[in-house]
Amino acid sequence: MSRTEPAASTTAVTTADLAPLVRPGAVAIIGASADPTRIGGRPIAYMLRAGFKGAILPVNPNRAEVQGLACYPSVAALPQVPDVAVIAVPGAAALQAVEELGARGTRFAVMFTAGYAEVDEAGAAAQGALVAAARRHRMRLLGPNCLGLFNAAAGFYPIFSASLEGGLPLPGRIGIASQSGAYGTHLFAACRARGIGTAMLVTTGNEADLSVADAIGWMTRDDDLDVIMAYVEGVQDGPAFAGALAAARRAGKPVIMMKVGRSAVGSAAAQSHTASIAGNDAIFSAVLAEHGAIRARSTEELIDIAYAATRRIYPVPNTLGVITISGGAGVLISDAAEAAGLPMPPMPEEAQARLKAILPIAAPRNPVDCTAQAFNDLSLIGRFTESMIADGGYSSILAFFTQIGGAPSMAPAIRAQLNAVKARHPDRLYALSVLAPEERNREYEADGYLLYEDPARAVVALDAMGRLGASFSAPDPAEVPAGEPVRLPETNPSEAEAKRLLAAAGIAAVPEAVCADAEAAVAAAGSFGFPVVMKILSPDILHKTEIGGVLLDVSDAEAVRRGHATLLERAARHAPGARIEGVLVARQVRGAVECIMGIQRDPVFGPVAMVGLGGVFVEVMRDVVFRRCPFGEDVAEAMIRSIKAAPLLTGARGRPPCDVAALARMLSRLSVFAVAAGPRLASIDLNPVFALPEGAFAADAVIEVGEAG
Amino acid sequence: MSRTEPAASTTAVTTADLAPLVRPGAVAIIGASADPTRIGGRPIAYMLRAGFKGAILPVNPNRAEVQGLACYPSVAALPQVPDVAVIAVPGAAALQAVEELGARGTRFAVMFTAGYAEVDEAGAAAQGALVAAARRHRMRLLGPNCLGLFNAAAGFYPIFSASLEGGLPLPGRIGIASQSGAYGTHLFAACRARGIGTAMLVTTGNEADLSVADAIGWMTRDDDLDVIMAYVEGVQDGPAFAGALAAARRAGKPVIMMKVGRSAVGSAAAQSHTASIAGNDAIFSAVLAEHGAIRARSTEELIDIAYAATRRIYPVPNTLGVITISGGAGVLISDAAEAAGLPMPPMPEEAQARLKAILPIAAPRNPVDCTAQAFNDLSLIGRFTESMIADGGYSSILAFFTQIGGAPSMAPAIRAQLNAVKARHPDRLYALSVLAPEERNREYEADGYLLYEDPARAVVALDAMGRLGASFSAPDPAEVPAGEPVRLPETNPSEAEAKRLLAAAGIAAVPEAVCADAEAAVAAAGSFGFPVVMKILSPDILHKTEIGGVLLDVSDAEAVRRGHATLLERAARHAPGARIEGVLVARQVRGAVECIMGIQRDPVFGPVAMVGLGGVFVEVMRDVVFRRCPFGEDVAEAMIRSIKAAPLLTGARGRPPCDVAALARMLSRLSVFAVAAGPRLASIDLNPVFALPEGAFAADAVIEVGEAG
Repeated sequence: MSRTEPAASTTAVTTADLAPLVRPGAVAIIGASADPTRIGGRPIAYMLRAGFKGAILPVNPNRAEVQGLACYPSVAALPQVPDVAVIAVPGAAALQAVEELGARGTRFAVMFTAGYAEVDEAGAAAQGALVAAARRHRMRLLGPNCLGLFNAAAGFYPIFSASLEGGLPLPGRIGIASQSGAYGTHLFAACRARGIGTAMLVTTGNEADLSVADAIGWMTRDDDLDVIMAYVEGVQDGPAFAGALAAARRAGKPVIMMKVGRSAVGSAAAQSHTASIAGNDAIFSAVLAEHGAIRARSTEELIDIAYAATRRIYPVPNTLGVITISGGAGVLISDAAEAAGLPMPPMPEEAQARLKAILPIAAPRNPVDCTAQAFNDLSLIGRFTESMIADGGYSSILAFFTQIGGAPSMAPAIRAQLNAVKARHPDRLYALSVLAPEERNREYEADGYLLYEDPARAVVALDAMGRLGASFSAPDPAEVPAGEPVRLPETNPSEAEAKRLLAAAGIAAVPEAVCADAEAAVAAAGSFGFPVVMKILSPDILHKTEIGGVLLDVSDAEAVRRGHATLLERAARHAPGARIEGVLVARQVRGAVECIMGIQRDPVFGPVAMVGLGGVFVEVMRDVVFRRCPFGEDVAEAMIRSIKAAPLLTGARGRPPCDVAALARMLSRLSVFAVAAGPRLASIDLNPVFALPEGAFAADAVIEVGEAG
Repeated sequence: MSRTEPAASTTAVTTADLAPLVRPGAVAIIGASADPTRIGGRPIAYMLRAGFKGAILPVNPNRAEVQGLACYPSVAALPQVPDVAVIAVPGAAALQAVEELGARGTRFAVMFTAGYAEVDEAGAAAQGALVAAARRHRMRLLGPNCLGLFNAAAGFYPIFSASLEGGLPLPGRIGIASQSGAYGTHLFAACRARGIGTAMLVTTGNEADLSVADAIGWMTRDDDLDVIMAYVEGVQDGPAFAGALAAARRAGKPVIMMKVGRSAVGSAAAQSHTASIAGNDAIFSAVLAEHGAIRARSTEELIDIAYAATRRIYPVPNTLGVITISGGAGVLISDAAEAAGLPMPPMPEEAQARLKAILPIAAPRNPVDCTAQAFNDLSLIGRFTESMIADGGYSSILAFFTQIGGAPSMAPAIRAQLNAVKARHPDRLYALSVLAPEERNREYEADGYLLYEDPARAVVALDAMGRLGASFSAPDPAEVPAGEPVRLPETNPSEAEAKRLLAAAGIAAVPEAVCADAEAAVAAAGSFGFPVVMKILSPDILHKTEIGGVLLDVSDAEAVRRGHATLLERAARHAPGARIEGVLVARQVRGAVECIMGIQRDPVFGPVAMVGLGGVFVEVMRDVVFRRCPFGEDVAEAMIRSIKAAPLLTGARGRPPCDVAALARMLSRLSVFAVAAGPRLASIDLNPVFALPEGAFAADAVIEVGEAG
């Protein structure tokens, strides 16, 4: 599989226009079957059932008629040019079909055929031939090895999943973009089982041409869809993927994603399953966060959040008001809200007093507990909820009514109470936790309430609506000016050379001098003041500490002389052939917080910056933050403040606060440098970076240069 | 509310015998109502419906008959002594009923009546009077302010929840012990909606007498129950609670618990809801972990785990084998297993080769992906699953079949395939992730499969079965010998005195000397070797660093003299009245890992030990572990190794490993000391403790003494 070198800029990426693919006038089925349970028969059966309005053109040399439709012996014999062709024939016949369809001007092929890159090298070569043929004819391919797609509004079902047997999708405005056919149809079926409509499903299989990014990008532009669910194992074209997410954010359409392969064993399984590049999971999460896409932790969470998003209410700021008939459930919900980070501010004191006056045993703080007394006087529900919105100002309301909400004697009155409030405040999100029979649930949903049996799941979904709102309303990040062009040397630069390159980009190092001999070192140390740090300087010795090439706490002139001799002796012993450029003498910084910054080139997303606190925080606690390059100082500062140990930088334990602004400037400049350095930059390590009350300085710098891009 | 001072030993605590409460021969209803929807009418209506075999004795002076039963004007008029009485009359009448029932020999009262300690001080006093009356008659109280209980097998329903209107519980072997009536019945109703049987529910309300610990303790002994679900807001009697959990573990009955009040806002809500002591949530978690009880993170998780436990298969060790028809779902499940900590070892190479020979496109590693090909040849499911158990040896099997598992044309054959495997290996746990209609789900469940639509939820439940198995099969922790009696001084001891007390218990401090004057300090420093640490020594100055009372890096005799003067001057300035006992001189330890150990007296659970790494790890990362005192060295070592930053102690970053055994010995001895010191011990802080390659030493010790217990 070929990898695209990621573009070094944030320029918008345009994904494919899929309108002719999802709403064709005519579709051919190459390998059409009279048996509606065969791969080549299912699409025809489903489209007939769904009332597809376009022409269905079966192709099969052995039949004159298929499922009641005229059947054609070949592509050449077709009475019209199909906009889309489903290819359900094996191997060589599939390639021939692509050639013939392409020659006639068909624009899209949906390739069910398997046995390509997902199997072996020979399959990968055959896949390459398919793609080459399609490109020659400007035809786009979905698949191969894909399950197909559907567009419910058009009755268009070029898909062979058995899950459609159980029923067509319910009406709705959710689209599903999935690399896995089985998982994509599982999502559709799970939504149907919960009464949630899914208007479109696109499964992308091997992604020889069209990718999940194209599917997301198209769904962003399709006016029939409001919400996008996605399933991803790995991404090949990072910029296209990020571009699709960015477009969705700009369009105000939430992307809720299941990205598998978090775990080591999961990554191994993903590689055995598809030909995807699993990528670094933390980097993937950072890309999603950058664009406000939501990463679901489970399939249920994915559906819960997408379902909430169908209301198209994304509150900013989001605060949660809870009304409950059980104090215990109120506490449980409060715990869940804190875990999710969803604020539950208390009701105003005066409003609490008014509710107490209505019902002395109420607990009106928030959660607002109207107690079992609500069973005797259901008007309490309306009056309390009204006060929560009018006085408490909550943007999201969660009501815990459990079985009472389903009781035939209570439910109609509860609906009336809530509906009166909702009519006055239609801009709020309302979720109910009730245990009710199916038909009663449908009534609540028809009224516009979100239903979650488990209130903790409601909290997660409501919180996601606020996060989406914040993302949709955030300004686009400021354009980051391109850096000065960087000329990387042919081979890995020495520490001093690396620091010179970085200094030219405004990234400061600790004051230091390159010293050719011992006396120069003594003079430099004298000018900085003791103690100093001494390091061996060689382009051939990247990891100096490993050979004892760094001396700390060098406290006087005599120690500098001894240190100089020691460093040369160690270099000669452990790295005999290394070119020695001298010894580096630097001021020893005290009282700094040690940080680490770095760049790594991700094969999918290009240069990615990392920042964390040094030492144990990185190595033991894995407390680091990633972000694609480049980015500005505001983003850099937010990254730094999101480190768990950030309080150490901002004055914890009675320390003076560090200069976070200087640290952020350095990080942003590093990200610009990484892009300006181009694809030959393999990695940068600034470790440690000293964060001081004034300023931040790199104490060491390693730049690794890779093959020419 | 009175607090019981926790017993200072681990002696088994016996909870109440509730047999007469849950299986009475006769039950009286004080305040019986002819209306089956009133508080005093519902228990009668439910018992009549459920066919309760004992005598139902309504008491109401205004009626001769209630719901077809003879009604009595007073307790005195009852024709027989009720074993249990439901009290559904207000205030003074309730107290009178307790007196009269007690006088006649009734052993248990279920008090629906509210308006006691949950309301105000006057209510608390009235509750005290109730308890006093009951005690005089040796009668036990459930409640007041409780919803009641049920025992389905006996048809016994002294409960006024409307949730029983929707149907009686399904048959099963789960018991529910809940402090909240509304939440307890929500659990029962949610179980019923999922087809899960619940044999018993006990709600404890204000817990004036019987507590959730009594309910758990009884369910442990009740042969009709295998699994205990519990809901807890706060515990008043820590030893009874811990004793009930310990008894459940010994009986091999899992306790799965929802403990609310994790969050700050949750705790505030809990206090407004009941009169419970919320306690320190981390300590509560530690108590649950100590006894192998499982803390659920959501209601669904609580039910998911209890449901899995009804199979009574607790595998040791637990390994997960996953069979899937979707590679993507396999990866998703692998991620979930890694997050849960449930091992998914790969299939043996030879077995993988055999499966590849059967189906070349299979991915047979684990997850074992038999691909969509399984639809065409369902025997693959049986052959692959058999190999996973016979060759892979997995103790838990999770099969992801999604809609295929529900397809009418496939499900019977899938069941037959799986049943054949299951018959050969009945000792394994089998869970299915299918999307199927209700009646098909019931068939799978009748065959003994656990059903979870979301496979990630199945993983969490299966993992819990292994954790329960490990807990049930673990030996009881070794009895910890009582420590030497400790005589705490009347007031807070000085640092030196604290260290002497601890030294007598085998807890070593850094070598040090108390010095009365500057020359003694110089002599002591000379004997330890420079540099030394110097500290002011006063029983009135507990937190020395705050007044600058600690000097580090004191490097020679002259510096010792200067330091002595500085310390005295600072003490005089910042703590003018303090009694000065001299200056402490100690060896300055280098190369140690700084730890922190402490004891705090929890109002519920008594002395609790804490250990963590020092400084930022405690203060910023909150990376600490708790355990009730006392405990042995094995437990202490496990605590230390469970700290997230523990790799720093065991040789991370190229350091020499610390003497974890010495650290564990110190921690265990501290826990024994805390118990021996008795209830006047308020807290101990050893901060820092230096962990060295050989040995561990407390560098500072603060003991706080409280009021006499």
